[in-house]
Amino acid sequence: MTDDVTGPGRYVGLRVAVVGTGLIGGSVLLRLRDAGLDVTGWDPDRATREHARRQGVAAPETLDEAVAGRDVVFLCGPLPTLPGTLLRVAGATAPECVLTDVGSTKVELADFARRHGLTDRFVPGHPMAGAASAGLTAATAALLDDAAWVLCPAPGPATDAFRRLAALVVALFRARVVPLSPEVHDTAAALASHVPHLLAGALAGAVQRAPLRDTVLGLAAGSFRDGTRVAGTPATRTANMLLGNRERVLGGLAAVTAYLDELAEALRAGDVAALTARYGEAAAARAALLGRSLRTDVRAFPAAGDHAAEVAWLRELGAAGGHLSGCRVDAGTVSYTAHLPT
Amino acid sequence: MTDDVTGPGRYVGLRVAVVGTGLIGGSVLLRLRDAGLDVTGWDPDRATREHARRQGVAAPETLDEAVAGRDVVFLCGPLPTLPGTLLRVAGATAPECVLTDVGSTKVELADFARRHGLTDRFVPGHPMAGAASAGLTAATAALLDDAAWVLCPAPGPATDAFRRLAALVVALFRARVVPLSPEVHDTAAALASHVPHLLAGALAGAVQRAPLRDTVLGLAAGSFRDGTRVAGTPATRTANMLLGNRERVLGGLAAVTAYLDELAEALRAGDVAALTARYGEAAAARAALLGRSLRTDVRAFPAAGDHAAEVAWLRELGAAGGHLSGCRVDAGTVSYTAHLPT
Repeated sequence: MTDDVTGPGRYVGLRVAVVGTGLIGGSVLLRLRDAGLDVTGWDPDRATREHARRQGVAAPETLDEAVAGRDVVFLCGPLPTLPGTLLRVAGATAPECVLTDVGSTKVELADFARRHGLTDRFVPGHPMAGAASAGLTAATAALLDDAAWVLCPAPGPATDAFRRLAALVVALFRARVVPLSPEVHDTAAALASHVPHLLAGALAGAVQRAPLRDTVLGLAAGSFRDGTRVAGTPATRTANMLLGNRERVLGGLAAVTAYLDELAEALRAGDVAALTARYGEAAAARAALLGRSLRTDVRAFPAAGDHAAEVAWLRELGAAGGHLSGCRVDAGTVSYTAHLPT
Repeated sequence: MTDDVTGPGRYVGLRVAVVGTGLIGGSVLLRLRDAGLDVTGWDPDRATREHARRQGVAAPETLDEAVAGRDVVFLCGPLPTLPGTLLRVAGATAPECVLTDVGSTKVELADFARRHGLTDRFVPGHPMAGAASAGLTAATAALLDDAAWVLCPAPGPATDAFRRLAALVVALFRARVVPLSPEVHDTAAALASHVPHLLAGALAGAVQRAPLRDTVLGLAAGSFRDGTRVAGTPATRTANMLLGNRERVLGGLAAVTAYLDELAEALRAGDVAALTARYGEAAAARAALLGRSLRTDVRAFPAAGDHAAEVAWLRELGAAGGHLSGCRVDAGTVSYTAHLPT
């Protein structure tokens, strides 16, 4: 394995396993297969393993066979299964094997890894992409292309694992690698993803119960379709995601309902000026999202050492809304290509 | 003008005016121009009138000139201006001239028209389409194609005006005409459009104020982008829409926040079964939206008479989530092509 990022071809022959080949894991699997890597997939569901084989991927009958001798393992099963799977895969692979996951919350699993002494080789991860559908049959090699892909760096030996994964996902998925601490990830993801799932569920659920449900569905145009889209996501997956980040989701929800109360109060009072001002403030976030302009920066650190400054810089970059598009280790130096909001 | 719907060509030469040529009015104007109708546009903004002329549309300097001698007038200005414009246009046109509007709420304007004796020729309307942008420069002839287009039928002479408009918007916009009473429209639109605007505003506004705003924007994927899209709509337009349907919007919002409270309570309690059940209920509305299957029915009524049965059937069709794709008057009979959820 190389830390260069100049092309996916450099990864041909790298031995990777994907454990849990549903929508996300299956998409990882297909992209790695297409890039010519030596990839195995495993899923507890026999029919899914058979489907993987029909896709031209080795899918052994047991988890141990699937991960034996691998350089990198992606853990992609349902959120509640990840701690157990992490332990099991760690026990079945060599200490040099880098482990990562794609779960939608990071604090709990990072804490679990720390308690089990796996911090040096486990890099918590979260590609920010998805679909309302589920399963390997819904997976596509392109699902994660260009996604924001959170990876959580940590000081010490863990930094090397972070660098290797960052280079890999940039090269193979053209991902924007967003380095964050697990805590900042979970707080930001509450507003960026988890609370939007609550709002979509509440809107769709209230309409499902409404006397005029059929009228509403007959009129539904952009705002309703967009606002309810993720309510069609498999219910168990959504429930697991919310429960895995409970306190931060409730905190984010409180901020959103406080704003909603302000809007409702202005509406109740017929206060057009207040209502317009609140919408102007909301539109500013939307304009910032659509008009994000980024400057490029290259930053180098010593490849050896405790990596404290490197990790601090990485986390600050991600928290500022920036991302990495390159990571290269060469002649005792690691250099990152970074993109920061201007 | 004919009540046949076999093609837009039958409307060549029909004299139509569009008053208020912003995003929606401008899109109506461009579609009518492309269909070869004799169309005039008027807007209080001089630069907009000049822009309309550069688009090949007659745009007289005064409202009275623009509407004089017209067969149909679309009222498309901002919601608060519509009552005044309706009175003025009614005074400047012949009693045979059919008037309609495209405002996002219907009860207030319908009541105003009734109080001013305009019910026979004014058909409240609302095409369910839009965009985050505004103005004639953002308008396109295709914006309203295939939209659900609410028209409010009423008994008596008003029914003839409804029939003429229904045939026109089907032929020229390929619209799905949804016949509703103003009250049912406003109640359903609260959930189909107005409350989604409140939720989008609250989510975007809370993020704009969040300490981790830039992190959230850096992570924003589908659920956040979709859930905030209409928060980028011009603030004044949104405020007018909400204020024009205040009580029903607050009622719809109460239903949605009650559901949101149930979701939050299940989350707080760590009750995975309750959370999954609520999301299953929400997903049912989403599935009903995407999986709507419609059966076609042709229904005929006597062209003359008080039209009470015809109007009752039309309103029931729309409230059930159905729509019209045809309206033809022939040999003393009016026949509708209707599509109803199965």
